[in-house]
Amino acid sequence: MRISELSRRSGVSVTTIKYYLREGLLPAGRQTAATQAEYDEQHLRRLRLIRALTGVRGLSVSTTRDLLDVLDQHTGDTHLTLGLALGAIRLAEEPAGQAPEAAEVDALVKELGWDVHESAPARAALAETLASLRSLGVPRDWRTLLPYARLAERTAVLDLDQLDGIEDPLELAEHALLLTVLLEPALLALRRMAQENESARRHTDH
Amino acid sequence: MRISELSRRSGVSVTTIKYYLREGLLPAGRQTAATQAEYDEQHLRRLRLIRALTGVRGLSVSTTRDLLDVLDQHTGDTHLTLGLALGAIRLAEEPAGQAPEAAEVDALVKELGWDVHESAPARAALAETLASLRSLGVPRDWRTLLPYARLAERTAVLDLDQLDGIEDPLELAEHALLLTVLLEPALLALRRMAQENESARRHTDH
Repeated sequence: MRISELSRRSGVSVTTIKYYLREGLLPAGRQTAATQAEYDEQHLRRLRLIRALTGVRGLSVSTTRDLLDVLDQHTGDTHLTLGLALGAIRLAEEPAGQAPEAAEVDALVKELGWDVHESAPARAALAETLASLRSLGVPRDWRTLLPYARLAERTAVLDLDQLDGIEDPLELAEHALLLTVLLEPALLALRRMAQENESARRHTDH
Repeated sequence: MRISELSRRSGVSVTTIKYYLREGLLPAGRQTAATQAEYDEQHLRRLRLIRALTGVRGLSVSTTRDLLDVLDQHTGDTHLTLGLALGAIRLAEEPAGQAPEAAEVDALVKELGWDVHESAPARAALAETLASLRSLGVPRDWRTLLPYARLAERTAVLDLDQLDGIEDPLELAEHALLLTVLLEPALLALRRMAQENESARRHTDH
């Protein structure tokens, strides 16, 4: 396909596609004339993934390029592909947080028996929540999170099921990212609605 | 207690407390001298709730006052208290959204048999998610959300269990708000970690 069709099918402007080509995020097309090149489905998948990484995850162009490079070097490693797409595995290791709640998160992960990267940003998010609840006078032990974590396990099975059968690593990374990030507000909305329903069940007569 | 102790125990500055007194969010204390008043535990609970409504939920001072007025008129109605605190019940009705996805959300709620207010903002959030997924080329039917909703039901039971036994309506509203809003990033973090673990289980040898 020509660059105009690639633009139409990916939803990325021709100007931006040319910028990605210059910056090395997108490999050059097959030259068919002095000013014309042909692109294929692989270019389209890569472009969709770039859009998801820069748009949905908000990564910079240079971080996106680094991430794509690592993906290219490890095609076939589905776990790494998913970890990179979702940010569980980060390119540059950051020092572990020193918050006292970090030890509680370690205890939780150990109790769950989960296989979670040491530098996963989700660990810091959990520690921050425990610290916030404490500072606002609603202290909660990590054990409070245990039943929530068991439900999260079942949510993750639903998530991964939706990615089953996607063979292309670029498409896999894009779908993982879109379904994870875009479903977040929906899952929070479902919780709010379920709370309302549960409150009606407990506290009203109907 | 004096206003200084009220400030210390609530974490709200004396200046802000005086502002809330002037604006009618907080009832006056018991006057003990020309320039001195005594405040009690009820003032403290109310102040903590005001802090949660303006801070965690980001409501304006005037909306907070309206909400507190409605709460004062309906003490004892736990379902209304929770609905108001969490924003499921809004003070001013807004017209229902006209997005085509709104009908899908209606179908979902009907299938679940949930008791959810027609104007609950969570309905709009769900419709927006379905629209986003569609526009980004990952269309999902409302039935995809059904198993997620069943897990949300069980999450809501855990949420409501944590509020069990809190009799004071102000304290109930504050705790509901803090536990709902502050747990949101934690639940999303647990999902990310569970995804990583599930991906390791499916896609690696260990």
